[in-house]
Amino acid sequence: MVVLKDDERLDYLLAENMRIIQSPSVFSFSLDAVLLARFSYLPLKRGKVVDLCSGNGIIPLLLSARTSVEITGVEIQERLLDMAERSIRYNGVEDQVTMKLGDVKEINKLLHHSHYDVVTCNPPYFETVPTSMQNLNEHYTIARHEVLCTLEDTIQAASYPLKQGGKASFVHRPGRLMDILSLMRKHRLEPKRMRLVYPREGKEANTLLIEGIKDGKPDLKILPPLFVYNENNEYSQEVYEMLYGKE
Amino acid sequence: MVVLKDDERLDYLLAENMRIIQSPSVFSFSLDAVLLARFSYLPLKRGKVVDLCSGNGIIPLLLSARTSVEITGVEIQERLLDMAERSIRYNGVEDQVTMKLGDVKEINKLLHHSHYDVVTCNPPYFETVPTSMQNLNEHYTIARHEVLCTLEDTIQAASYPLKQGGKASFVHRPGRLMDILSLMRKHRLEPKRMRLVYPREGKEANTLLIEGIKDGKPDLKILPPLFVYNENNEYSQEVYEMLYGKE
Repeated sequence: MVVLKDDERLDYLLAENMRIIQSPSVFSFSLDAVLLARFSYLPLKRGKVVDLCSGNGIIPLLLSARTSVEITGVEIQERLLDMAERSIRYNGVEDQVTMKLGDVKEINKLLHHSHYDVVTCNPPYFETVPTSMQNLNEHYTIARHEVLCTLEDTIQAASYPLKQGGKASFVHRPGRLMDILSLMRKHRLEPKRMRLVYPREGKEANTLLIEGIKDGKPDLKILPPLFVYNENNEYSQEVYEMLYGKE
Repeated sequence: MVVLKDDERLDYLLAENMRIIQSPSVFSFSLDAVLLARFSYLPLKRGKVVDLCSGNGIIPLLLSARTSVEITGVEIQERLLDMAERSIRYNGVEDQVTMKLGDVKEINKLLHHSHYDVVTCNPPYFETVPTSMQNLNEHYTIARHEVLCTLEDTIQAASYPLKQGGKASFVHRPGRLMDILSLMRKHRLEPKRMRLVYPREGKEANTLLIEGIKDGKPDLKILPPLFVYNENNEYSQEVYEMLYGKE
């Protein structure tokens, strides 16, 4: 049983055989969240995972299908947190996944210091809000623009709860690569693994996946490129399996 | 007519219909030089180009086939400069390509400030020289290791002769990405265009091509990936054409 509010829908996460509450007017997850959930290192049986800027809980839900460890999601918007908590109960993972309402700028009030093994974060991408959008939809604006927290706020917040040697993963736009790398190093998350996502062969990258290790040694590996679509405009095999599972 | 010394050979640059003097014991160019020569922006009729760390002149020679502008190569090793100058004369481009003997750390004694439109540089890649190699081959050691100049020396040297709005391109290893990006920004070469080179599909990147614009605005584009080999272990179409020309 699930209560859907306003224009909410109960969408499918087919690869995980789960469902998630979404709303066209409030929040819908993007492919980036799926890519990040797959890119991130994930302990299988021991450890603790945090997801920051969780939105409707898409990343905690996706991760819960692949590990039995405890997962904590942090979200600043009550409306989205409420969606996440109903999705968590609907999928019966409330013993594994906990949501916390709070601001990543006050991460020390929400999470223990040096306590977690993995942090994931799909932060707001856009530095400024165009005037034309500023009052259009508060929920989307907060989720997509650096209104309530900057890139540095989220990177700093990701470092705080991590143990030494713990891993933090982010998804962002390639245009911010320089800022991400320098902010990660500044906040002790040494960049170690990067993967670039291209819409298709022959196109520029439009998404960046990056993982840092807290107090790790400098040595960045660049993984094989990921193409979202193939030459027939269908999802590539790899992305298809992330979304729909193996055939 | 060309005089070959010691174990030198007159190798072919097939795509350009040129030849170049190489020596297995002194210096042979690598694919990286070919990749950089193709990646770099090149003015066709007006402008001035500098290549730093030129070795046997491979990049100035390759560029001379695609532009009529003046090209200056800088090399610190007399033995290599001598090879470069004989290759330049052999190919009849001595009116277009000039080599200068000198140290990039003293670039202000070699080149005018803010005078050039494009700088290319395939610098030494390795930070330290393993003890086992230290006295083995001085020419190779200097060309491949940061013995005589560090990465920062070369990036700083690339910035000096460039006009505002001029472009500097480098080829390097992905493990140094963070250092390259931050040093480029530090020396006013804002990273604008990057391309990653992978040995083949499914493998990690092993080469990095990057171009910065002097005093440019931050906005890094990541170009489509380049694969060197295809699934049959042959050169990919793109690399084949760089080496052998269009069929």
